[in-house]
Amino acid sequence: MRRDRSPRRALLCTLLLALAILRGAPVLAETREPLPSWNDGPARQAILAFVKEVTTPGAPGFVPPAERIATFDNDGTLWPSHPMYTQLVFAMDRIRELAPDHPEWKTQQPFQAVLENDVAALAALGEKGLAELIMVSHASMSTEAFEAIVTGWLETARHPRFQRRYTELAYQPMLELLAFLRENGFKNYIVSGGGVEFMRPWTERVYGVPPEQVVGSTIKTRYEVRDGRPVLMRLPEVDFIDDKAGKPVAINQRIGRRPIAAFGNSAGDREMLEWTGAGRGKRLMMLVLHDDAEREYAYGPALGLPDTKFGTFPASLLEEAGQKGWVIIHMKDDWKRIFTFEE
Amino acid sequence: MRRDRSPRRALLCTLLLALAILRGAPVLAETREPLPSWNDGPARQAILAFVKEVTTPGAPGFVPPAERIATFDNDGTLWPSHPMYTQLVFAMDRIRELAPDHPEWKTQQPFQAVLENDVAALAALGEKGLAELIMVSHASMSTEAFEAIVTGWLETARHPRFQRRYTELAYQPMLELLAFLRENGFKNYIVSGGGVEFMRPWTERVYGVPPEQVVGSTIKTRYEVRDGRPVLMRLPEVDFIDDKAGKPVAINQRIGRRPIAAFGNSAGDREMLEWTGAGRGKRLMMLVLHDDAEREYAYGPALGLPDTKFGTFPASLLEEAGQKGWVIIHMKDDWKRIFTFEE
Repeated sequence: MRRDRSPRRALLCTLLLALAILRGAPVLAETREPLPSWNDGPARQAILAFVKEVTTPGAPGFVPPAERIATFDNDGTLWPSHPMYTQLVFAMDRIRELAPDHPEWKTQQPFQAVLENDVAALAALGEKGLAELIMVSHASMSTEAFEAIVTGWLETARHPRFQRRYTELAYQPMLELLAFLRENGFKNYIVSGGGVEFMRPWTERVYGVPPEQVVGSTIKTRYEVRDGRPVLMRLPEVDFIDDKAGKPVAINQRIGRRPIAAFGNSAGDREMLEWTGAGRGKRLMMLVLHDDAEREYAYGPALGLPDTKFGTFPASLLEEAGQKGWVIIHMKDDWKRIFTFEE
Repeated sequence: MRRDRSPRRALLCTLLLALAILRGAPVLAETREPLPSWNDGPARQAILAFVKEVTTPGAPGFVPPAERIATFDNDGTLWPSHPMYTQLVFAMDRIRELAPDHPEWKTQQPFQAVLENDVAALAALGEKGLAELIMVSHASMSTEAFEAIVTGWLETARHPRFQRRYTELAYQPMLELLAFLRENGFKNYIVSGGGVEFMRPWTERVYGVPPEQVVGSTIKTRYEVRDGRPVLMRLPEVDFIDDKAGKPVAINQRIGRRPIAAFGNSAGDREMLEWTGAGRGKRLMMLVLHDDAEREYAYGPALGLPDTKFGTFPASLLEEAGQKGWVIIHMKDDWKRIFTFEE
């Protein structure tokens, strides 16, 4: 009997040994290729080399996991910013919804432009006009009420060209990049000019970025107890604009660590990339260039095309990128597919 | 030979099996008792019951790990706020250091009070005077320079009564509470009226709370490129006071999730506890009561003692705590030891 059981026991031993080794292995060898929607060009290579360097213990560029902070702009970097910022579409829809209670808007800018869908007048709105649209459509309600409105709008609104929910338009290659960084111990933050409470209701589901890792523009809120119940009321007053030189300010104030990687697509991201690049050690700064009119959009002086109000990419930004080794992501050449729903 | 190896192989098998089981076990049974520096009274029991409820899958109060947010006030909750706020001691030391360059301060309030160590005049300083002290001592330098100054000061400064570094005065029971929550999947945040950049240089080392989980008061900063190098300059201008009704505002703006547990010690924490308690599901709100003059300090009307400028605990707070089921932590009865260095 003893002899007969020996081979079985040997097999069991081998299996248990294999199990013990497998469980003990700190990281299972990754068999699938990372970033499958990226063509194997300079952009993908830059990402792979950077991640390898900062995650390899003993490498000169090794960075402990706690310091692996990556910051991402949202509009034009993780999802489209054309034909206009999604949040502006939301604001305009809200204005139309509220219009019956405001007959005076019919002859009062900036509301008239919205109600008449006067694109020229809308494009000509300065910061003040835009701010007014945002204030009227985003404020004078509780934070909970606003969240419910955003969530409801995203369910019904469709992108005018792609006829999809806006949340379906997250760029597939960037979703893979977010996941790849996360798997490698990074904490991904969104650092966007968009409103933080416009983004938080859906960033976790869409990008895997939880609310506490979303930094954005804010309006002032006020704590009140109404009928014995505490609420935060959204006031029609700008608190902070998280754009341009505001991005490093917000990164310092709200994250308190300097990123080692930063991703953007426009002049609004310049200072975030400068601030990231000025830290010690290995860094990765990348800019998405919209050069694919067929699959998405193409615009900007860097391509000899007219610039846009919604994610401007001036020649000076391209020049600075060249000088500082920031990597350009050419949508047309670097991305095999742009949207998850393709094919 | 075969026969001889069998017993050894059996032993190996058993060991490997044990190893496989151990590695496969999701959580090792915790053998040591949690919260060893807490007496087993109502406060400790409230913590244990709450944590058990929110972490037990299937329990009515179960909360997924991502939503296990706990917020802690700092001064008077995690370390002493007497004889005055540590950051005010820091500001006064800075004023004394800068005084030789400011002969006019000798006859100019609030500086004169600091230089003459006029405690009565200091206690009488209103918000404006305090703000002026903070501005002059905390601003007009880069964020990096400020961090270096804070770190250096904490090395040399000693608490006047305990003659220890301030960072050695973290309450041992609260360190155990932070660790216990962390081990149970909580994300601990500090939400303090203190300056965020005064706290971040040391909270990870002392409390295990990383910089991105520290919320506090802020002064404005400005992004500048100096000699080709980006810096954030600290401006002598208040940005946000994270106290009282400011705490829920900051929690919403910077964390974006409502806490399920909140810990404070004074009127400055009232709204944070209200906001926490107003969420759905199981909640834990606790207030540290300083009633131990022998080992630490005792003050406040709740004890029939005079109140203090540094962590006021009015009778109305005690009353609200009673009405809302907030748990009082009596330092004297609930804590076996207060400081790590005791014994």
